[in-house]
Amino acid sequence: MGMPEVVFGERKTPAQVAGIFKRLAKHGKNVLATRATKEQFTAVKKGVRGVKYEVAAQAIVLRRDRRLYGKGVIAVVSAGTSDIPVAEEAVVTAELMGNQVERIYDVGVAGIHRLLAHQKTLSRARVVIVCAGMEGALPSVVGGLIGAPVIAVPTSVGYGAAFQGLAALLGMMNSCASNVSVVNIDNGFGAGYVASLINRL
Amino acid sequence: MGMPEVVFGERKTPAQVAGIFKRLAKHGKNVLATRATKEQFTAVKKGVRGVKYEVAAQAIVLRRDRRLYGKGVIAVVSAGTSDIPVAEEAVVTAELMGNQVERIYDVGVAGIHRLLAHQKTLSRARVVIVCAGMEGALPSVVGGLIGAPVIAVPTSVGYGAAFQGLAALLGMMNSCASNVSVVNIDNGFGAGYVASLINRL
Amino acid sequence: MGMPEVVFGERKTPAQVAGIFKRLAKHGKNVLATRATKEQFTAVKKGVRGVKYEVAAQAIVLRRDRRLYGKGVIAVVSAGTSDIPVAEEAVVTAELMGNQVERIYDVGVAGIHRLLAHQKTLSRARVVIVCAGMEGALPSVVGGLIGAPVIAVPTSVGYGAAFQGLAALLGMMNSCASNVSVVNIDNGFGAGYVASLINRL
Amino acid sequence: MGMPEVVFGERKTPAQVAGIFKRLAKHGKNVLATRATKEQFTAVKKGVRGVKYEVAAQAIVLRRDRRLYGKGVIAVVSAGTSDIPVAEEAVVTAELMGNQVERIYDVGVAGIHRLLAHQKTLSRARVVIVCAGMEGALPSVVGGLIGAPVIAVPTSVGYGAAFQGLAALLGMMNSCASNVSVVNIDNGFGAGYVASLINRL
Amino acid sequence: MGMPEVVFGERKTPAQVAGIFKRLAKHGKNVLATRATKEQFTAVKKGVRGVKYEVAAQAIVLRRDRRLYGKGVIAVVSAGTSDIPVAEEAVVTAELMGNQVERIYDVGVAGIHRLLAHQKTLSRARVVIVCAGMEGALPSVVGGLIGAPVIAVPTSVGYGAAFQGLAALLGMMNSCASNVSVVNIDNGFGAGYVASLINRL
Amino acid sequence: MGMPEVVFGERKTPAQVAGIFKRLAKHGKNVLATRATKEQFTAVKKGVRGVKYEVAAQAIVLRRDRRLYGKGVIAVVSAGTSDIPVAEEAVVTAELMGNQVERIYDVGVAGIHRLLAHQKTLSRARVVIVCAGMEGALPSVVGGLIGAPVIAVPTSVGYGAAFQGLAALLGMMNSCASNVSVVNIDNGFGAGYVASLINRL
Amino acid sequence: MGMPEVVFGERKTPAQVAGIFKRLAKHGKNVLATRATKEQFTAVKKGVRGVKYEVAAQAIVLRRDRRLYGKGVIAVVSAGTSDIPVAEEAVVTAELMGNQVERIYDVGVAGIHRLLAHQKTLSRARVVIVCAGMEGALPSVVGGLIGAPVIAVPTSVGYGAAFQGLAALLGMMNSCASNVSVVNIDNGFGAGYVASLINRL
Amino acid sequence: MGMPEVVFGERKTPAQVAGIFKRLAKHGKNVLATRATKEQFTAVKKGVRGVKYEVAAQAIVLRRDRRLYGKGVIAVVSAGTSDIPVAEEAVVTAELMGNQVERIYDVGVAGIHRLLAHQKTLSRARVVIVCAGMEGALPSVVGGLIGAPVIAVPTSVGYGAAFQGLAALLGMMNSCASNVSVVNIDNGFGAGYVASLINRL
Repeated sequence: MGMPEVVFGERKTPAQVAGIFKRLAKHGKNVLATRATKEQFTAVKKGVRGVKYEVAAQAIVLRRDRRLYGKGVIAVVSAGTSDIPVAEEAVVTAELMGNQVERIYDVGVAGIHRLLAHQKTLSRARVVIVCAGMEGALPSVVGGLIGAPVIAVPTSVGYGAAFQGLAALLGMMNSCASNVSVVNIDNGFGAGYVASLINRL
Repeated sequence: MGMPEVVFGERKTPAQVAGIFKRLAKHGKNVLATRATKEQFTAVKKGVRGVKYEVAAQAIVLRRDRRLYGKGVIAVVSAGTSDIPVAEEAVVTAELMGNQVERIYDVGVAGIHRLLAHQKTLSRARVVIVCAGMEGALPSVVGGLIGAPVIAVPTSVGYGAAFQGLAALLGMMNSCASNVSVVNIDNGFGAGYVASLINRL
Repeated sequence: MGMPEVVFGERKTPAQVAGIFKRLAKHGKNVLATRATKEQFTAVKKGVRGVKYEVAAQAIVLRRDRRLYGKGVIAVVSAGTSDIPVAEEAVVTAELMGNQVERIYDVGVAGIHRLLAHQKTLSRARVVIVCAGMEGALPSVVGGLIGAPVIAVPTSVGYGAAFQGLAALLGMMNSCASNVSVVNIDNGFGAGYVASLINRL
Repeated sequence: MGMPEVVFGERKTPAQVAGIFKRLAKHGKNVLATRATKEQFTAVKKGVRGVKYEVAAQAIVLRRDRRLYGKGVIAVVSAGTSDIPVAEEAVVTAELMGNQVERIYDVGVAGIHRLLAHQKTLSRARVVIVCAGMEGALPSVVGGLIGAPVIAVPTSVGYGAAFQGLAALLGMMNSCASNVSVVNIDNGFGAGYVASLINRL
Repeated sequence: MGMPEVVFGERKTPAQVAGIFKRLAKHGKNVLATRATKEQFTAVKKGVRGVKYEVAAQAIVLRRDRRLYGKGVIAVVSAGTSDIPVAEEAVVTAELMGNQVERIYDVGVAGIHRLLAHQKTLSRARVVIVCAGMEGALPSVVGGLIGAPVIAVPTSVGYGAAFQGLAALLGMMNSCASNVSVVNIDNGFGAGYVASLINRL
Repeated sequence: MGMPEVVFGERKTPAQVAGIFKRLAKHGKNVLATRATKEQFTAVKKGVRGVKYEVAAQAIVLRRDRRLYGKGVIAVVSAGTSDIPVAEEAVVTAELMGNQVERIYDVGVAGIHRLLAHQKTLSRARVVIVCAGMEGALPSVVGGLIGAPVIAVPTSVGYGAAFQGLAALLGMMNSCASNVSVVNIDNGFGAGYVASLINRL
Repeated sequence: MGMPEVVFGERKTPAQVAGIFKRLAKHGKNVLATRATKEQFTAVKKGVRGVKYEVAAQAIVLRRDRRLYGKGVIAVVSAGTSDIPVAEEAVVTAELMGNQVERIYDVGVAGIHRLLAHQKTLSRARVVIVCAGMEGALPSVVGGLIGAPVIAVPTSVGYGAAFQGLAALLGMMNSCASNVSVVNIDNGFGAGYVASLINRL
Repeated sequence: MGMPEVVFGERKTPAQVAGIFKRLAKHGKNVLATRATKEQFTAVKKGVRGVKYEVAAQAIVLRRDRRLYGKGVIAVVSAGTSDIPVAEEAVVTAELMGNQVERIYDVGVAGIHRLLAHQKTLSRARVVIVCAGMEGALPSVVGGLIGAPVIAVPTSVGYGAAFQGLAALLGMMNSCASNVSVVNIDNGFGAGYVASLINRL
């Protein structure tokens, strides 16, 4: 109950996304298109009422069921401004699945005191999503500060030896904090989904 | 509450493990030594009463607190017999953290009906841990069968293009099931830990 | 007998493809241009009668010999909708080489029951081609369900840790089903070709 | 019918292999233990009558069913002397599955005329298995000489930039011969198995 | 003596190439611009007389010294039509450095008899350059046919597991022919240069 | 002045190390053998007076010049107990080059408050060396806390996706703190050397 | 004191860069935008007085504080002309942080005498930055010539097996000169920053 | 004429090497066993008269034909002492093939003046072999100093990011000197062989 219908927008034409979205919308559930462009949104809007485009998350959202299914708060933490699109995809997903979400952005590990200022919010969260590119160190630090499960999302942010998120991915897989598990590079949706499942328990 | 003290046994001498274990044992909590050898156990046993060696999990366990902290059952699924040590490390960790655990072993994807025979048990679980080496395909299949969160553990089982678990790791990172998150190769402990946190919610 | 002439269209100009196609067409056999664009087709059409463009497969086809050389049915299975172009390339190749083909599409491992619904068709096939990106798990599952040889085609579908098909390739190389062999990433043609050879035996 | 029971010997104790072998032997079929040591053989021999150790293939074999299931000959080709253990694993597997096998060994591509001398044998084969390490070029050459399906087995033979078979694996995946498909590094068993399935058609 | 001035055209503007070319042309030697576009040629032509654009090699050539410095013939061998630009870069380089060159094109290893038809030409060559992408097997075969030194050039031709020439590079590094050495991926110039040095001895 | 003579002990016999050490000792400077075993020490001791074996650093040390060349303090920080050998190699190197060193050990990022407790010491340091394996996140955090240059040393500590220090190396290369530069995996000596040069300025 | 405010321009719109730059400019410090385009500069210029675009460094610079903080000279060395943008980013950064900088360009290792001609300048430098792509050999040679610390910057210059700077990065990590530490691929800013910190000591 | 018979000793038993060596010795030519142990030598010596063990090269040598086939001198250059075994394998090979060889050892790029001291010897050589591990920079420097062809041999010397010779291999492939070609990691034999062919011209 409360599970959204989802379509992955990348490498689909506006017409394809619009077609799939319309079909999914018939099920009466919330519908989400991730990695969606404005062009795709324009196409979807013509056939489905009430859809909204979330610019920061690059997502098309149709929200019908607004009940809260999550029992606590999901905190979404991100390291740099370039990680925000991924973080926002997680936020949109979690909200659409009926969760209260708190954003803690721009708290990269090179400025640890900015992160520590949010410790109270972090401690109150039932699940925490952490998005970071480059060295991907943030989930370990967050994981050490709290007892709740942490879902880490490596992002493709960075250049050179970042290798499109590989450095962050490997970093997170090797996290020295025991409460961290990891989803695919840039997979904000997956993180939001897993966190939502956990928050319903 | 109910969090164990933990020591990683690999590349430590029996004397080192015994020393650390004894010190940790003073805190009055459950104590766990992972990747531990029989020699390390023999050394630990001399200084600490009530310790047990879990052969299959290669773990030394001191269990004092036997309360149940987990609210449901954690299912631990493994693909082949060679994955069992990793799976058992997850089992031992989860049990020591106060969870009821059900084992579903030897259900690799090439014999999908063996897995399907356990569908009821899987559906009852509140969290599922899935350990698999080689192509690492099992978490996707399990993830598709149930609605609960799945913690995937790639194992270093395999040869040739398995590249010590890299193939399984990449496979699991790309899982087409949205409820899957991943821990490090052979990290049964981490999976058991994360699953325990989730099961307490 | 019944072997087509083949040209690989990628990175060739329409004029180049048209020139080669025309030359090959003189041999009187079936001719196939893979990875071909509509522009290439337009150029080919001017010089060769009876050619057809297969949109889904991105292939230009000249079919003269319509005899059946294959002794049974080749099933072509694909995981997600994005894998279909590769699957269709296999279909077109197999058909042009004189085989009966059955498509089983959109049966990714995260929805195993959709695949199981086709078990009868699969069991009747003499050879099975399985196309999958992301974790590349489908060939193992299919391989376990049937006794026939399985040709696995990793596709470059996915993002992040999919690494343009590397994850799927490694997964398939490590398949725990013994009846699986693998061709190059996105090589639908190769799979169709090998399957056709086998089906003639 | 005629499918053997198989156990993978690597990293198992003699006692474990002996136990599994004995259990499998009860089914009345042919039994094969691959990657088996002499110590494992000694242990198996105590509990099962009629077993044989194939030194070159590092395999323990129990052959009861000696019928021919394959309709033609399977040729097993190998590049250098170091590739022979993998080739022999393929031979033993194919023979145990009821096939006639012809060996064509020591025909690496740097001495192309040695290979060409066997062209007649190659052309008579219904399926060809080609084992090669280092640059893994042999399957392409063999594939170009014949019309039958070729199963390529990269071996971990080589040093330096061979990277334990990775160079050969990549080479074979990119074969310019269309009749080649590939199994895992050193997977002689898999090649023998797939070839046997094909030869029964 | 007879060494050309060289400029690498890639990622330079027409103006930059024209400027450098003009400056180099003042030394009175042959001048070569590799990886050059027609636009760069147009710009060069305005300031330097007698330059020529070699389309197939993507090179701008100013030839003043037409003496032969090489003592024998350099054979340039290539596998597929897509390898020709790299091969032609080698040809242009070698010719500009005063060598007689013989082209042996389109002799990939999957059609070994096409290569064998050129054995006489190959045997007469004092040095042989071999360009091949995909599995990069051709240098080993050529190396085995002759006694002369072979300079192997991996090309970035291929797709999927070719990984932009990495597969061919690794294959050539592991060549089982002892007379093979290797230059960088697509480095036709380097091969032509080294071969020219050898041919002068 | 004050630069030590250095020999790298790994893969050398005790006799080789003893021979080189003795020869270097004749120059009258401090002498250091890194990656040295007790056996090598025993051999060195026989020929050179006053040598000492630093167990934790696995180093043989001959200290004659005890002057201070460094103008401030070098802090050596390490994440886990397994990183200590690398950290100690840095310490021994820096001390032998005439520096005051302060150790800050066991301050991994998953327990950030342990690190923050040392902030005063860190701020006083003129250069800081940070050794960490696994995710290699510590240099970024330390780098953000201070204004001094940070020399990061990835260690090969970890398992699975740590890939012998590759994960830590990539993490450190992508550090979001601008004052971080990196030396080779496990290269405590290099870090101590660079830090000493900086501290002399 | 004298630390600039910095914004990373890549993948930001002109409006975004202009907004951030304007905000940072209010702090009264020097401001630097790296990886900045002319379009971004045009946008910035409208809102901030006195900014300058450094074409070669692709940087937007606002210099207010012109004091010298560095105690000696920083030498910036680069191998080829394609490495100059990275070198210039280092120069601009170092100058903006109050350092005297000397450029030593176009001194790649294949023309070692060109480098040796600058030995005096190199020896006078208090810190040396070395930028090189392709094989990344220059830092080792420079490191061997001088006693000062060397900051090595691998650049993404090269093709084929250069793998976007990976070859240079690995080369520099393995430098046989002990005074070398390394920053990320193309990270001229980081090198300038670290060198500035060292030069203030 | 003057081509030796060769056997690769690695992973062969003393009996196997002795058997092959004896058989090859019957051809009357020079015989060489590379990567050979003393145990293998002891076995060979029993069956073949006049064999010698070259400790530094780890080679067993039977020299009958002592004529000079090479027209000039081959210089063999190596960077560090650990590279000497590979260099010596090249020396032994070249000598056995009838060449005059000059060794220039211990001239790593971090001490460039040691190398420059040998410039005259280098310039006199007709071909130069350069062996180097770690960053593999030496061939570029040597290549720039001379006009003769350079055969580069990456060695597996180094640790950490050296990745068993991969760093050196990539470095050499990207050499900025145009006269460099490369053989496999640790392949001293191949380098000696190619150099000998060139020196005969």
